[in-house]
Amino acid sequence: MNKVALIPRFQDRAYTGAEADDRRAWLEEISEVELKHIGSSTIPVESLRGNIENPIGSVQMPVGIAGPLTVKGEHATGTYYVPLATTEGALVRSYERGMALLTRAGGVTTHVFRDENQICPVFQFDDVTAAVEFCQFLENNTERIREEAESTTNHGKLLGCTPTMVGRDVEVCLRFSTGDAHGMNMVAKAADAACRWIRANSNANSYSLFSGLSSEKRPSGRLLSAGKGKGVVAAAEIPAKWVRLYLHTTPREICDLWRRTVIGNMMANAIGYCGHYANGLSALFIACGQDVANVVNSAVGVTDYEVTESGDLYASVTLPSLTVGTVGGGVALGSSRECLDLLGCFGAGKARKFAEIAAGTVLAGELSFAGALVSSEFVDAHENYGRNRPSQD
Amino acid sequence: MNKVALIPRFQDRAYTGAEADDRRAWLEEISEVELKHIGSSTIPVESLRGNIENPIGSVQMPVGIAGPLTVKGEHATGTYYVPLATTEGALVRSYERGMALLTRAGGVTTHVFRDENQICPVFQFDDVTAAVEFCQFLENNTERIREEAESTTNHGKLLGCTPTMVGRDVEVCLRFSTGDAHGMNMVAKAADAACRWIRANSNANSYSLFSGLSSEKRPSGRLLSAGKGKGVVAAAEIPAKWVRLYLHTTPREICDLWRRTVIGNMMANAIGYCGHYANGLSALFIACGQDVANVVNSAVGVTDYEVTESGDLYASVTLPSLTVGTVGGGVALGSSRECLDLLGCFGAGKARKFAEIAAGTVLAGELSFAGALVSSEFVDAHENYGRNRPSQD
Amino acid sequence: MNKVALIPRFQDRAYTGAEADDRRAWLEEISEVELKHIGSSTIPVESLRGNIENPIGSVQMPVGIAGPLTVKGEHATGTYYVPLATTEGALVRSYERGMALLTRAGGVTTHVFRDENQICPVFQFDDVTAAVEFCQFLENNTERIREEAESTTNHGKLLGCTPTMVGRDVEVCLRFSTGDAHGMNMVAKAADAACRWIRANSNANSYSLFSGLSSEKRPSGRLLSAGKGKGVVAAAEIPAKWVRLYLHTTPREICDLWRRTVIGNMMANAIGYCGHYANGLSALFIACGQDVANVVNSAVGVTDYEVTESGDLYASVTLPSLTVGTVGGGVALGSSRECLDLLGCFGAGKARKFAEIAAGTVLAGELSFAGALVSSEFVDAHENYGRNRPSQD
Amino acid sequence: MNKVALIPRFQDRAYTGAEADDRRAWLEEISEVELKHIGSSTIPVESLRGNIENPIGSVQMPVGIAGPLTVKGEHATGTYYVPLATTEGALVRSYERGMALLTRAGGVTTHVFRDENQICPVFQFDDVTAAVEFCQFLENNTERIREEAESTTNHGKLLGCTPTMVGRDVEVCLRFSTGDAHGMNMVAKAADAACRWIRANSNANSYSLFSGLSSEKRPSGRLLSAGKGKGVVAAAEIPAKWVRLYLHTTPREICDLWRRTVIGNMMANAIGYCGHYANGLSALFIACGQDVANVVNSAVGVTDYEVTESGDLYASVTLPSLTVGTVGGGVALGSSRECLDLLGCFGAGKARKFAEIAAGTVLAGELSFAGALVSSEFVDAHENYGRNRPSQD
Repeated sequence: MNKVALIPRFQDRAYTGAEADDRRAWLEEISEVELKHIGSSTIPVESLRGNIENPIGSVQMPVGIAGPLTVKGEHATGTYYVPLATTEGALVRSYERGMALLTRAGGVTTHVFRDENQICPVFQFDDVTAAVEFCQFLENNTERIREEAESTTNHGKLLGCTPTMVGRDVEVCLRFSTGDAHGMNMVAKAADAACRWIRANSNANSYSLFSGLSSEKRPSGRLLSAGKGKGVVAAAEIPAKWVRLYLHTTPREICDLWRRTVIGNMMANAIGYCGHYANGLSALFIACGQDVANVVNSAVGVTDYEVTESGDLYASVTLPSLTVGTVGGGVALGSSRECLDLLGCFGAGKARKFAEIAAGTVLAGELSFAGALVSSEFVDAHENYGRNRPSQD
Repeated sequence: MNKVALIPRFQDRAYTGAEADDRRAWLEEISEVELKHIGSSTIPVESLRGNIENPIGSVQMPVGIAGPLTVKGEHATGTYYVPLATTEGALVRSYERGMALLTRAGGVTTHVFRDENQICPVFQFDDVTAAVEFCQFLENNTERIREEAESTTNHGKLLGCTPTMVGRDVEVCLRFSTGDAHGMNMVAKAADAACRWIRANSNANSYSLFSGLSSEKRPSGRLLSAGKGKGVVAAAEIPAKWVRLYLHTTPREICDLWRRTVIGNMMANAIGYCGHYANGLSALFIACGQDVANVVNSAVGVTDYEVTESGDLYASVTLPSLTVGTVGGGVALGSSRECLDLLGCFGAGKARKFAEIAAGTVLAGELSFAGALVSSEFVDAHENYGRNRPSQD
Repeated sequence: MNKVALIPRFQDRAYTGAEADDRRAWLEEISEVELKHIGSSTIPVESLRGNIENPIGSVQMPVGIAGPLTVKGEHATGTYYVPLATTEGALVRSYERGMALLTRAGGVTTHVFRDENQICPVFQFDDVTAAVEFCQFLENNTERIREEAESTTNHGKLLGCTPTMVGRDVEVCLRFSTGDAHGMNMVAKAADAACRWIRANSNANSYSLFSGLSSEKRPSGRLLSAGKGKGVVAAAEIPAKWVRLYLHTTPREICDLWRRTVIGNMMANAIGYCGHYANGLSALFIACGQDVANVVNSAVGVTDYEVTESGDLYASVTLPSLTVGTVGGGVALGSSRECLDLLGCFGAGKARKFAEIAAGTVLAGELSFAGALVSSEFVDAHENYGRNRPSQD
Repeated sequence: MNKVALIPRFQDRAYTGAEADDRRAWLEEISEVELKHIGSSTIPVESLRGNIENPIGSVQMPVGIAGPLTVKGEHATGTYYVPLATTEGALVRSYERGMALLTRAGGVTTHVFRDENQICPVFQFDDVTAAVEFCQFLENNTERIREEAESTTNHGKLLGCTPTMVGRDVEVCLRFSTGDAHGMNMVAKAADAACRWIRANSNANSYSLFSGLSSEKRPSGRLLSAGKGKGVVAAAEIPAKWVRLYLHTTPREICDLWRRTVIGNMMANAIGYCGHYANGLSALFIACGQDVANVVNSAVGVTDYEVTESGDLYASVTLPSLTVGTVGGGVALGSSRECLDLLGCFGAGKARKFAEIAAGTVLAGELSFAGALVSSEFVDAHENYGRNRPSQD
């Protein structure tokens, strides 16, 4: 057997069940591993064109349900049961506890305060003088640039065009509204059209479509300070009695934990402050067919707690760079569609609603995590739920 | 129907197929959504105890195969076909291109240069003088602390114990080797035992098990500068001719792209520098039953390119905070086990091997991404693979 | 002698020479230290009101002159000899070398691409909904807010008013043009007036004038990504032969150094990239009566090098947060005035000119530093100039 | 007049008063600016060798005195009057207020918890395998490397040698104790000797003495997380009644301000948290002949406030990267010596004492600043002290 064999393409039967079956059979043979679970996929291979290459089936991840989560948002209004795909014991139970607390407290208020996607090409010039002139050119030609960009898309709208000078390069942040799609491919195509026009009509010598400035799927401070994607806030005022009952602690103790762990995060040069946004977001993204790599930028934000004048807890999460979509990508595939349907979030007009439910979910997880840390239940909870031992709850 | 109904527990049939079926039926009823795909899970619910609560089945994500990837590591030696679960069109094809290039160039060299996990409790004192004294106490009692910590675990070994003073608090970084497990629960339990002993025998007033310093699943500069989890490097020297053939560009152009996009990332206050580590890592983590939230810390690192004296390309990725495991967590479940088996990475003694394959995969993705950017193929590739149109390759 | 004596105020002779003399005499007595040098100040105490309290005289710092530096800017055009106050041996010589190189290459091109100062108050609200509404209020009332702010100042103009939501707080970045003054006091007063009006007319419960967002005199990523104060760029294309003659190296070697040290800075989680901006800026600021604490924000930026197609060196520095002034503060006092006069930069209409000379100075220092590192002259240079031994140059 | 004239060297009378006079006269002639104040320097030019080149005299900066500041440190014990050189009105008064408060509260407790300086050369290798082997080489040869390094210095001691891998480069952090000197030249020379030995005896191809990792005079997260130079903490427990009397506020209000402004700093991607360390440090550094450019690294740290169980305020500053010296550099020159003598900090054995007084000064400034912000006195204070109007206090 030749181990460096190329993966067979089977182009005559591309994106048919036969293609995946044949490739999986080939792989089973050379690897001597039976791929039974992968082969039991219920997603029609025909629907995978545009989503994956060299398909061999599907992987499965257990999904649990957390809720009820009452959301009082602009786009999400109601009580939701949130599907979370994970293999980390205690995660679903923890989010569920936070959701129950929020719901008991009357629900979580949510807002989408920004909704866009970005792409940041970079242009090169002869010298800094040309670069400075170009910044003026951009300002004078915004309308024309918009036309070029929007000519490539039905849904994308250019919201802004902001230059950043670095030596004789100019990085240009193009911000687009992308409707209910994730929109990265849409904005790349639109930006490319805009850049071609700019290149032909300005003093720029050349350009690259990606400068690295936008921090798509990469960790950066800019994700916090300037944001990217959807900016969402979720908050609730929670009576002290419910904090005590559900989290076994007090608003003041939660604020003391915040102070202490903010300093710990600060010493780590963390971006923003959170407990574990990535846990809930990755579980939700996997369940709902989102681009999971976007958890890297989406999990940047700030969790805040205050003791109110009445001694209750005001808790919030602010997520400046949440990247989600309810059309395009993998949202229509098998279980993804089912999970989005569970939340009433499949299809056009639903992306902000989904963003609000995601933010509410994140707040639930923060509260429960904080409670576990303050009351020293963390180790016990993971002993109960995270190992193969009977649960006592 | 009462929308704020609690999720039913069915404790009499916990972790049986009946439990998941009954809960899913309940959810279908109140949501009026049919959960057919979720219900077609082939993972026995009996095996889910310790991995999830409130299970309703499994979600599916398409998985494709990329390769061949020849790895010349300390732990991974051979040629691999890497399963990647994603719904982002062009991702598998892009990683495959990079793997083919690396393999053609003789393979990717990999090393695990650090292997540990961390937990960083924080202790509180009367005043800064007591905190300073405590740092001395720690140094004098390292052996005793080790004993306490290791008494709770068969696999965890305490590697170090380093204090960080902030006012009258002392954050203590406990570094453990965790064998082939992810190990967060293991180190939490060990640290808790150590902390209890320290609390009883030192001048500390109190402690919290988590200070926030360790950046578990949170983005931070410390992940790059000090590392966490496995530190892994992957590199290859690639003849210019293969760069031209596979990536349609030259080593010099790739280095010029690096310079330009390093500056873009710098202006974004990015942590480290990469193209899109998160894409490959999240696809691999989902396929192989890893804790996907750890992509946030694992995707921190540095991609570097140099033109060698002979005009070829020396390319490397350095991943200082890669968090993976081949025992525990979700690795034994259904398709996760199959995917790990494909790589020969299931079970004890395989975590470093898996880390090396992961790093090689990441390098493949960086090379292909760089090639696409330099040769302006990015938009075209996503047009070809990322939309529902026939592929021309 | 009572060591905890309060410092005498001498209010009857406030801001007279007698006041400083008497206080100095008191200090000499209780400390038994003769303050001869401090007492030999030639700055009239009468002129110090508004600049210092409890004066006892002046400290002296040696000042050397570096040049000639030919600047081809928008505001600075000509050849300058730059006063640098320092006690770090080799510093003046190093900057002089870079200036001579730039001048030989035809001069340094400079531009001020932004000119403003910022203050960022924060407002508190009942809940996130009120905070979201407030962002709309700000947008609707920008003109009114401008009127209130500008009513307090003859020179300050409100350039923009941008909200950032964090939970139920809203941080508002107020950007002002401040003429030729540093302007922090000016913008504080203007912002306070604006905030009072906002507080009275909006749904805000309270406000704090300083949220911490503006990074005045504090290190932050935002100083690089969003900027503060004057944004200035300085650049030059330098023939390879002059690089060889002055720096004993080649453009390519300087670019290789850049690559290597960019990675070192990256691993340190540095903000931006530079060699030693702070050296030149602090020496210039001290000489010219600037607020030296602003070196912390001013020294943030990006140094960039490229090998041009003709094999020469394109070198630039970008300083997004340079804080300087030529009116107000200490600029009129004694030697400060003399140093500014040397540059033709004292008084109204000169701040941008001064900023351009500062940026040119910084570039000179970067080039010389890079040359010393590449050619391994650093230790030797400091041996020659930095110790009490005869100079061989 | 030829404006691009080179600056005259006068090597026959180097470092004599005549040299400075002649150069100043030359400068006065070509600039037509009278340099009277600069020429009235009382520092003998003979003493400037090793501190400056091209001297023309001295600049003056007004110096005021703040105190009394009672310090209860390990190295500083007593009550001090601290000289602060500044032209920012209200600065001295503000620090004085904080000092008076600390002294009234019984004094500020200080500790130096780390004392070292760093230099971080970088070595290049054929490939990552060689780089990994080199890390082992370093560990095996630490003693030998120490010998080489220490052979160049009487005071420097190598404390540690820690590698950081990035691709096929290895950055090596060499930590030295440098006695009472700033020590950068000392460690550069020692490191160069060590590197030459390493280069000759290991598999390294080449090295650069400065990788950029150490963040000398540059802003970086590493300055906070890993530290550099002296690590110092200063703290005090302050009765609520003195908070009220001196700062016109309460411990709780100060903690609320902390929370709010910590978030503002977080949103700015600030390094650590402080009010205005740079103000006090630059004023102190200028007065006492320190290297002022080191304010950039020294001003990184964390200010923390807690309400104690008794309702009082526990306040602290932690400065992990304070760079000061009491021998070498400019400390012996004229007013610098006088200012150090005022603090009893001139010469050998005094650097840690000086560091503790500096930290106490910084805490005083933080408290006063916090008080001004909370009680909304900031604008008024700057109106009173920062403008040419009579003071009312």
